[in-house]
Amino acid sequence: MVKVYQSTVLNAPAERVWRDLRDFNGLASWHPLIVLSRIEKDHPADKVGCVRNFQLKDGSRIREQLLSLSDFDYTCTSAILDGPPDLSDHVAILRLFPVTEGNRCFIEWSAEFECPPQKAAELTETVGEGMIQTGLTALKKRYG
Amino acid sequence: MVKVYQSTVLNAPAERVWRDLRDFNGLASWHPLIVLSRIEKDHPADKVGCVRNFQLKDGSRIREQLLSLSDFDYTCTSAILDGPPDLSDHVAILRLFPVTEGNRCFIEWSAEFECPPQKAAELTETVGEGMIQTGLTALKKRYG
Amino acid sequence: MVKVYQSTVLNAPAERVWRDLRDFNGLASWHPLIVLSRIEKDHPADKVGCVRNFQLKDGSRIREQLLSLSDFDYTCTSAILDGPPDLSDHVAILRLFPVTEGNRCFIEWSAEFECPPQKAAELTETVGEGMIQTGLTALKKRYG
Amino acid sequence: MVKVYQSTVLNAPAERVWRDLRDFNGLASWHPLIVLSRIEKDHPADKVGCVRNFQLKDGSRIREQLLSLSDFDYTCTSAILDGPPDLSDHVAILRLFPVTEGNRCFIEWSAEFECPPQKAAELTETVGEGMIQTGLTALKKRYG
Repeated sequence: MVKVYQSTVLNAPAERVWRDLRDFNGLASWHPLIVLSRIEKDHPADKVGCVRNFQLKDGSRIREQLLSLSDFDYTCTSAILDGPPDLSDHVAILRLFPVTEGNRCFIEWSAEFECPPQKAAELTETVGEGMIQTGLTALKKRYG
Repeated sequence: MVKVYQSTVLNAPAERVWRDLRDFNGLASWHPLIVLSRIEKDHPADKVGCVRNFQLKDGSRIREQLLSLSDFDYTCTSAILDGPPDLSDHVAILRLFPVTEGNRCFIEWSAEFECPPQKAAELTETVGEGMIQTGLTALKKRYG
Repeated sequence: MVKVYQSTVLNAPAERVWRDLRDFNGLASWHPLIVLSRIEKDHPADKVGCVRNFQLKDGSRIREQLLSLSDFDYTCTSAILDGPPDLSDHVAILRLFPVTEGNRCFIEWSAEFECPPQKAAELTETVGEGMIQTGLTALKKRYG
Repeated sequence: MVKVYQSTVLNAPAERVWRDLRDFNGLASWHPLIVLSRIEKDHPADKVGCVRNFQLKDGSRIREQLLSLSDFDYTCTSAILDGPPDLSDHVAILRLFPVTEGNRCFIEWSAEFECPPQKAAELTETVGEGMIQTGLTALKKRYG
């Protein structure tokens, strides 16, 4: 199992950022690598168990299931159902913490997955830099 | 703030019990004190933020909002919106843990709330025994 | 039970800050309100269960027991054994999280305690501002 | 990274079991596979960072460091410094939860480690069955 962890500080209150991030179908509106997203079966995006089906800029497609959503502690957990070849058992956790000093919040984004050992370095890069760090950088710009 | 905590062991696997407990509208089917429940606005019962509106045997009515639901770690958090007089800021957390030895699971049910000091003993009894312990006892019977 | 929570971001890596904060006897070296501290019975300061006995600038004295210490997730929990009148069951939790972007860390400091209702506002101020916020402000300066 | 998780229920209160388990040097007194244990440098066994050096029945020797100890939530985390060949980055977490119904407690024992893929099955057996399950079975007998 490979683990990836990235974190940063955003210049907006946790409640404000959570309004955006709790939308499991909202990824395309802020993540630069994602161009189109929909929730399968027309489920609400905050129905635990729903599946988002989104397209990357490179044309590939990923299906992810919402495993948990918490308005209580600003946390979202999801699993990849169909994704990059050689990657399996991918679970990602995104969490916000209020920074009481200043209108800011701390954001953690981590992922765990299995892959063939010879693919570990490449997929760690794809997930950790391509998906997670690119997403965090975009969020930093979004909230100034 | 008053805290209540009860826990026990159920004779069924966590996945099996979770199938029942994750239904935020299912309380009336297993909790002896609850006779009728519906989710307001016809929302799905696993949509985070939905409100369940249920009636107790004594005729009183409680409205609770789903704050978090996790198929990942079998956890459900909810807050009372309208409930017993003198009780406020009530948040309850229910969590299952698999017991790998035997087809069993460990269940925790806790709650926190505010109330006038002179009401603390009575409401601790109402919440801790009336709601939580009665519920756990019913679950123990249900799973034999 | 009263709850207090403060958090901020420090300009040093979590491992660096933890080297200082894990010293349960080190409070006097960085907290402006604390002038003298010793560990009772000459115990090592990282022995779980040890008691620190420290003096505040105003001359009062507090005894706190180390309930938990984690080099694994940079967490320290302590309970007041003898402290301000009217305050009881005081437990404080201090936790660091690495901020991977930049050599920074996120720090949370929270406390829970019981007190007579008419003392809640005053003690919330004493604990939340006097002890916790003053400490966090000092740490911010310390790490530039 | 390989993950192992085992859990069971013990017939003694959490506080009682914790008195035994918090002794980082006490393994030899209850774990059937372990014959001799000492804490290096004569450190107290509850000093976070101390190293226990113990011998298995088969004559091999393991050195483990105490990463965290919590009297607050009955948790102990440790890392193997020197152990079985091919096993690295081994971290184990042991945690007790009170079962309020009956004088019992729920115990979780999990471990994570790295190893060459061709050794994963064998080491999962060694750690999950040999060490953890054997330990839990002994604890069950100990507390009747």
